[in-house]
Amino acid sequence: WRLVTVDAIAHLKRVYRFKNFAEALKFTNRLGELAEEVGHHPAILTEWGRVTVEWWSHEIGGLHKTDFILAARSDVAFESI
Amino acid sequence: WRLVTVDAIAHLKRVYRFKNFAEALKFTNRLGELAEEVGHHPAILTEWGRVTVEWWSHEIGGLHKTDFILAARSDVAFESI
Repeated sequence: WRLVTVDAIAHLKRVYRFKNFAEALKFTNRLGELAEEVGHHPAILTEWGRVTVEWWSHEIGGLHKTDFILAARSDVAFESI
Repeated sequence: WRLVTVDAIAHLKRVYRFKNFAEALKFTNRLGELAEEVGHHPAILTEWGRVTVEWWSHEIGGLHKTDFILAARSDVAFESI
């Protein structure tokens, strides 16, 4: 995970690699399930063989503990793909 | 659709709005089905209530007729959500 700043707001960002588009989209859906489960939603960029995820907290305009936890849970979801 | 330039390559870009994350993700999956069907893949940014789509042709480093057709088909998919 990298710490990036978007419009002066800190985000956690990571790129995950996949062997094709279908696998990438599958992971996007896993992240979607996770997001819906916790009621906190990332930005998910789905491309051929690649998914780029950004977690941050709109409400506080930056990072909350939740974002770090969800970044870790994204990694767990990735390992299980 | 707007014509944008990313790394000196022309892309067709459009933002679609939805009432929540689930509807946005549903549309992302519709686009995924379309992409797999034609073997040509866009960049799809899924966020809460919003999906941003970019079509372009990597092979030719710009826009091909296919991209315009797929942009139109994305609109049709959106209307059917």
